[in-house]
Amino acid sequence: MDGYRGFLGLLVSALLVGFLSVLFTLIWVLHYREGLGWDGSALEFNWHPVLVVTGLVFIQGIAIIVYRLPWTWKCSKLLMKCIHAGLNAVAAILAVISLVAVFDFHNARSIPNMYSLHSWIGLTVVILYILQLLLGFFAFLVPLAPLSLRAFLMPLHIYSGLLIFGIVIASALTGVTEKLFFALTKPAYSTFPPEGVFTNTLGLLILVFGALIFWIVTRPQWKRPKEPNSVLLQPNGGTPEGVEGSMAINFGKADSESNNEAAARKRNLPLDEAGQRSTL
Amino acid sequence: MDGYRGFLGLLVSALLVGFLSVLFTLIWVLHYREGLGWDGSALEFNWHPVLVVTGLVFIQGIAIIVYRLPWTWKCSKLLMKCIHAGLNAVAAILAVISLVAVFDFHNARSIPNMYSLHSWIGLTVVILYILQLLLGFFAFLVPLAPLSLRAFLMPLHIYSGLLIFGIVIASALTGVTEKLFFALTKPAYSTFPPEGVFTNTLGLLILVFGALIFWIVTRPQWKRPKEPNSVLLQPNGGTPEGVEGSMAINFGKADSESNNEAAARKRNLPLDEAGQRSTL
Repeated sequence: MDGYRGFLGLLVSALLVGFLSVLFTLIWVLHYREGLGWDGSALEFNWHPVLVVTGLVFIQGIAIIVYRLPWTWKCSKLLMKCIHAGLNAVAAILAVISLVAVFDFHNARSIPNMYSLHSWIGLTVVILYILQLLLGFFAFLVPLAPLSLRAFLMPLHIYSGLLIFGIVIASALTGVTEKLFFALTKPAYSTFPPEGVFTNTLGLLILVFGALIFWIVTRPQWKRPKEPNSVLLQPNGGTPEGVEGSMAINFGKADSESNNEAAARKRNLPLDEAGQRSTL
Repeated sequence: MDGYRGFLGLLVSALLVGFLSVLFTLIWVLHYREGLGWDGSALEFNWHPVLVVTGLVFIQGIAIIVYRLPWTWKCSKLLMKCIHAGLNAVAAILAVISLVAVFDFHNARSIPNMYSLHSWIGLTVVILYILQLLLGFFAFLVPLAPLSLRAFLMPLHIYSGLLIFGIVIASALTGVTEKLFFALTKPAYSTFPPEGVFTNTLGLLILVFGALIFWIVTRPQWKRPKEPNSVLLQPNGGTPEGVEGSMAINFGKADSESNNEAAARKRNLPLDEAGQRSTL
């Protein structure tokens, strides 16, 4: 792997910042807020930030970069796809529970649901996340979809995956903003109380975590290598492994590969002579 | 250009949604709020969302995709770089004025500055935006930096450009959230007043605009083609035009090109025979 030490440094930083984000969220609700419970009170609401930051932020972030861990490159693609899908499934379940906590809390206190921008974006992104998970499951994990459909869907899967991750982070920041303006009245948020400064820092940690994941996942030199000869073994020059793996993160890999394939065919060269592996 | 009609459809959609975002912001401050002015009152504050959405959201979004407009591919790279830098400079100036408006308003009313998460993220992203503009100016527009430095900086420039754009959008959404919780008291935000629904819709428009720009800018088939023979003319096999242009949007293009170059040299093939243009 090119730049292994750089990768390792960024991975450790991402894990540290992600872990701190979860820790800060727990300290926020346990120390500054009322704690956790499941009784329709604010204690139940507090599960919302804890589960969102743990699942949709931290676990989703790890799921996005899981193909890039070089010590997993010996593992089969199927295993890695199961881990990727499994982590996202866990995050989706936590997200649904986090929504139940908020709706329960609102209903118990007769607080209207779905009036704020945070609620609009948050519910939308959870629905998109579940759709993305289902699409990914049926298109890439279950061997049902034809290769051409997989190749067509992969750029969409990559784009929407990163977009959803970005919207989750934006939504988390609006959620922190909303909660602090509700909760911090005595003393007011504007008087720089410790909880305000602490939770603003949590917001920045979430943002930095997103930035680190975004960097790691967009470096072409850190992509999982294709399975040996996976392209040449295909009668139609398709990329059965490549569709799921090596294209899974890099933007527009499908296009560049198909163009490379076309260029190679034109010159009657085998694909790996046409430089098509040089972007891995 | 591959998929020209698709590109055109998305471009028109982006322009429409971006234009609607600016229009909605104007309607918000002129119809629902007090209007615009420069007297330390809420009228001065109202310049803040107008200038941010016009500059940092809309103009920055256009600046990001300006290399991709196929009818500009006849124009020189230098001209396009000037347009890219010029649009970003205009957005930066509007951003600074938008900050002055908020600080003026706060100071006139003795409201503390810089206590909210929105203010932390917003000020940080404006500083990053200006640094990115200066770095871009000295590294890519003024012919001072050596090619190797440009090639090293370009992936950072691309990454930080898109990251800053994403943070701007997240920051705008926290700003809308903050303002609505401040402003909507009678009737309360939670009673679904027209202003709440309208401004939530503005938030969604900003998000959709960001998603459209993100899609357009990450499609490899819509990249500006390299200048003919720009690579082969370079004694060291560098990419003087490619550094600024064809790599300006696609993630990690630097890496894939240098790898392609290495592969081509290894086989003593000219670069454009090695499929290095097939990802354009």
